[in-house]
Amino acid sequence: MTKEKARIKFALFGAGFIGKIHGANIARHSQAELAYIYDVNTEAAEQLAVQLGAKVAASPGEIWGSNVDAVLIASSTNTHADLLNGAIDACKPIYCEKPIDLDMNRVKAVVQQAQKTDLPILVGFSRRFDSNHLGIREALQNGEIGKLEMMHITARDPKPPLLSYVKVSGGQFRDQTIHFFDMLRWLAGEDPVEVYAAGASLVDPAIGEAGDVDTSMLILKFASGALCHINCSRRADYGYDERVELFGSKGMAISRRKPRREVTFYKGVSVVSDGLHPGWFERMEPTFYRALDTFIQAVEGKNAEYPTLIDGLKAQIIAEAAVESLRTNQPVKINYWSPEQ
Amino acid sequence: MTKEKARIKFALFGAGFIGKIHGANIARHSQAELAYIYDVNTEAAEQLAVQLGAKVAASPGEIWGSNVDAVLIASSTNTHADLLNGAIDACKPIYCEKPIDLDMNRVKAVVQQAQKTDLPILVGFSRRFDSNHLGIREALQNGEIGKLEMMHITARDPKPPLLSYVKVSGGQFRDQTIHFFDMLRWLAGEDPVEVYAAGASLVDPAIGEAGDVDTSMLILKFASGALCHINCSRRADYGYDERVELFGSKGMAISRRKPRREVTFYKGVSVVSDGLHPGWFERMEPTFYRALDTFIQAVEGKNAEYPTLIDGLKAQIIAEAAVESLRTNQPVKINYWSPEQ
Amino acid sequence: MTKEKARIKFALFGAGFIGKIHGANIARHSQAELAYIYDVNTEAAEQLAVQLGAKVAASPGEIWGSNVDAVLIASSTNTHADLLNGAIDACKPIYCEKPIDLDMNRVKAVVQQAQKTDLPILVGFSRRFDSNHLGIREALQNGEIGKLEMMHITARDPKPPLLSYVKVSGGQFRDQTIHFFDMLRWLAGEDPVEVYAAGASLVDPAIGEAGDVDTSMLILKFASGALCHINCSRRADYGYDERVELFGSKGMAISRRKPRREVTFYKGVSVVSDGLHPGWFERMEPTFYRALDTFIQAVEGKNAEYPTLIDGLKAQIIAEAAVESLRTNQPVKINYWSPEQ
Amino acid sequence: MTKEKARIKFALFGAGFIGKIHGANIARHSQAELAYIYDVNTEAAEQLAVQLGAKVAASPGEIWGSNVDAVLIASSTNTHADLLNGAIDACKPIYCEKPIDLDMNRVKAVVQQAQKTDLPILVGFSRRFDSNHLGIREALQNGEIGKLEMMHITARDPKPPLLSYVKVSGGQFRDQTIHFFDMLRWLAGEDPVEVYAAGASLVDPAIGEAGDVDTSMLILKFASGALCHINCSRRADYGYDERVELFGSKGMAISRRKPRREVTFYKGVSVVSDGLHPGWFERMEPTFYRALDTFIQAVEGKNAEYPTLIDGLKAQIIAEAAVESLRTNQPVKINYWSPEQ
Repeated sequence: MTKEKARIKFALFGAGFIGKIHGANIARHSQAELAYIYDVNTEAAEQLAVQLGAKVAASPGEIWGSNVDAVLIASSTNTHADLLNGAIDACKPIYCEKPIDLDMNRVKAVVQQAQKTDLPILVGFSRRFDSNHLGIREALQNGEIGKLEMMHITARDPKPPLLSYVKVSGGQFRDQTIHFFDMLRWLAGEDPVEVYAAGASLVDPAIGEAGDVDTSMLILKFASGALCHINCSRRADYGYDERVELFGSKGMAISRRKPRREVTFYKGVSVVSDGLHPGWFERMEPTFYRALDTFIQAVEGKNAEYPTLIDGLKAQIIAEAAVESLRTNQPVKINYWSPEQ
Repeated sequence: MTKEKARIKFALFGAGFIGKIHGANIARHSQAELAYIYDVNTEAAEQLAVQLGAKVAASPGEIWGSNVDAVLIASSTNTHADLLNGAIDACKPIYCEKPIDLDMNRVKAVVQQAQKTDLPILVGFSRRFDSNHLGIREALQNGEIGKLEMMHITARDPKPPLLSYVKVSGGQFRDQTIHFFDMLRWLAGEDPVEVYAAGASLVDPAIGEAGDVDTSMLILKFASGALCHINCSRRADYGYDERVELFGSKGMAISRRKPRREVTFYKGVSVVSDGLHPGWFERMEPTFYRALDTFIQAVEGKNAEYPTLIDGLKAQIIAEAAVESLRTNQPVKINYWSPEQ
Repeated sequence: MTKEKARIKFALFGAGFIGKIHGANIARHSQAELAYIYDVNTEAAEQLAVQLGAKVAASPGEIWGSNVDAVLIASSTNTHADLLNGAIDACKPIYCEKPIDLDMNRVKAVVQQAQKTDLPILVGFSRRFDSNHLGIREALQNGEIGKLEMMHITARDPKPPLLSYVKVSGGQFRDQTIHFFDMLRWLAGEDPVEVYAAGASLVDPAIGEAGDVDTSMLILKFASGALCHINCSRRADYGYDERVELFGSKGMAISRRKPRREVTFYKGVSVVSDGLHPGWFERMEPTFYRALDTFIQAVEGKNAEYPTLIDGLKAQIIAEAAVESLRTNQPVKINYWSPEQ
Repeated sequence: MTKEKARIKFALFGAGFIGKIHGANIARHSQAELAYIYDVNTEAAEQLAVQLGAKVAASPGEIWGSNVDAVLIASSTNTHADLLNGAIDACKPIYCEKPIDLDMNRVKAVVQQAQKTDLPILVGFSRRFDSNHLGIREALQNGEIGKLEMMHITARDPKPPLLSYVKVSGGQFRDQTIHFFDMLRWLAGEDPVEVYAAGASLVDPAIGEAGDVDTSMLILKFASGALCHINCSRRADYGYDERVELFGSKGMAISRRKPRREVTFYKGVSVVSDGLHPGWFERMEPTFYRALDTFIQAVEGKNAEYPTLIDGLKAQIIAEAAVESLRTNQPVKINYWSPEQ
């Protein structure tokens, strides 16, 4: 099949860092075509449009009324809910960056509205598309390590975000750990029922003064009795450190650190290898294309597994329970909410 | 110096599995000599005595009245307190296997009694003598990884003990995890102030019916704000798994798994290496000789760092708090007890 | 800079496997544009042209006369020399897949002709662009491992090529090992002066009957006294195995195997990780884009280091000496040839 | 069984570094007993005798006439042949350190004399008792990697020996590489038929001036067509480096480097682990006890596989061929010599 036929026309919301990544991926995907870009920063939208051969939309409305087949929402978090609503009304399949919204009521409203339709809506938990994480999940699903008993997730960013961002981010659990609240459900194949969270601001006291933590450990319990540990830090001197370990009744599966290169030096009393990636993006970059590709399969009506709005909602519900646990120093039961059918 | 002169004469209590290890180590240490063995099982004592060239003592009293320079207590746990008391009264330096006693009041009484003397008393937390664990502790103490922020300890036995043993062991925290309650204090250089414990019986329901857990995760908080995770299982399909990770402000230090051999096979799509040791003993065997050697230095009046009765007491106090946390599903403050001076 | 301006117009010769790779890389490079494709298989050329948005050239002549800025020669080996001559006459910078030609006289004639011009001509030894190999070369050049004393190159393909190909390939040294004859010069920064080669047909007796070997070991001597070992196999049960080790007076640098994923399983007595890539292409794929990028920098007049026609010639001269050594079972001095200036 | 019964009485020749190792191993082996020590340095013999509870023999003759059951020859190389002869005449089983003698005629004479008897005679190629090397040999023998096609042996000492020793050592091949000439026969299960050797003095020019090399590479051919590479250096900045790789038709087996500890540091852009052992002894130390244990089994009439005088002879014959190849820069056929039956 040549690229000319039947390509899915995309509109992209957001021409910032992550919007550029998505835009370039759409442009190089043989089944996709980037038709429109919208950004409140018109100049950014125009630059990207020129580079990728797309048109600038004057408003979201222009997109809703257009012939685009799908939208990709990569604009700032506070715009997600409205754009989701708009796209649902316009019957456009949606790839939306996480989180849905920081306000749980708005999240629930979007989920409720989406019940009316069966449009593909993918929430951007891109780690689900990492080949290492997929590898250990597959092993668990295939019974290779028996029944899951313990899970360990390590998630450490090289550097804390700007303090100004920390203040509006919703805090470490809603902003950083949320990826792993989704991941543990996806890996375990079941929802956690209780969470206990401990945390401190050890990296930067200003983060503590802003009411947040930068160093935290959590224990989550599954109904099956399995236990999950997460540790998060906003700073790791040695780069982006993300690792997962599944311990089962018949063995263990580890999604290891990913070195930058396979180069080793033997010098004196030491063996020195390359360390980790400088940031999450260098580590996770390939997952964005794979997530897009999966979304495209879904839009084309093919079978595709991907994180849904309900997955996005559940991760946020877990985050809220973790925040409550940290505040009260008590384990907190997780009450999932379901939209009315 | 030749072996004939000035060797320290030892009496050994206990001719079981661990007593045999200690006996053989004493026998091959150039500064030590095994003079007496006592065991309620006279036959076992006699066999070991013949093998190692020692005499059998008819009673502990014979040892207290003898010219032995030091005693090594490797008999069953319920005899430890009495033998400690006897040895303290007889002014014999003591190497005592852990735990001191399962009854905290008896532990405190021994600690109180020992205050009267400055005899070297080493409690057998042998993991303090593992070269890997020593390596990461040294790195932390030297400032190589900055200030400690998170610690992770993984401790998984290949197989659960006999159910009959589980029932009298005091439970997973007092029996298995206690080694790591000691280790975390020794590594961190500070005492934890609070513990939260979660657990389940996933390995064997009979362990749960006996009121114990076989799979557990704990979070301990230090006053400095640093956090410590421990996970314990009574069963690991793949062998004895003990690992420690120290995460600091300037880097991370890991005491890794120890493979049985350095042999690797490349076959088809896989790279296959040797797995872990079949049991804790194969992994930890070299630590017993090093602990003995350290004790001998202490007996000879040299500077030596080793786990003391107070260390033994503190590990047990943490274990009690963990048991309480598991029972109540609440974080529990750890109240240390000090003997009157 | 937007993609619209000043992009380098390329003509591509060859629409086969490797031509498609180069074509796609040109198409996605922001400073390049694929203008023409030529292949004697017109249908293949047309399909690729539609897919990448290029025109089909009716003949090489159409390209020589066109406004293309550079050519990429990825057609079959026997066409290289003529196309190189054509491009040199037409003053088009050239990226040419290796080898230049199997006939040394034709190679020398091309090299001689290229002396007349200073066009960038890159010969496709793409391993020079592998980040691992680059890493150890840089370490050697920076003095991190002292003076080079020994080099080890392992080069094993997963499967032998078709016997029909083996027969016209020039043999293992001219076809497979030649990449590493180039690599050792590039890594060492000096030319080998003598080669001894041993070989056998252990993989497939038919290869031996065709007068070739499939398993070989070589020792090459440098004037500095440093020694180089190469081992090559036409078959490795466990995937594509390419590794390099540089041993110097102050340490060792290794460009290790590259696993497919960073996933590890602990099961029973084994630790099982992912093996190697299924083939050389999966391992080396990123090098093609980097080589193209370097060529583009050169075409734009920027400083760029790349394998030249002289490098291509020298690798072939070493291969000829190795063939001679294998035939005679004698070490053979390597006599380099220089074009008249 | 207790230690008192039926222990094998040993006489030890040599109270130097390696003699002390053997002496201590005999002393701690439950089936052995150290009865006599002989050394021309009477003081050294006496010190070791006091330490290990043995008697000093006034002369070898005292030992031949004594009731000792076996002898261990760890004295200087030039005494080996006479002591071997003496022990054979006295019908004492022999553990003899390598080499038998530097003079091939004396070696052959000893081998010839030993034909008269079926005494166990073990030549100290202790690497045959390394658990890693044993592991890959077993895999090859069990068919796990198919038929052997290539073998790679890396053997690098941390530091060159004293120049005075180099001059009398017989040179790198007879002194250092000889261990690996034995190892390759033992691993392959067949004798090499031809050797090509290249070498240089890169570590220390004085070694070259003394007529020796310190850096060498060899290719050995087996009759089966399999090829073997050895590289040797007298100096490795990063410690004692010994590795073996077996490449077969169905896979590869590697006996890897052995790290000092399993400790890893993540700091900045690097991952730093422990390097290699400081010397061959730290790496190979456990093999001496295992070799002794095997010898004891043989003396007790049990089935035991060990390196024999014939193995010692063959390794020296290969070394002679390698020396000849280095001298002539020609591959040299290896002509094995057999004693008359």
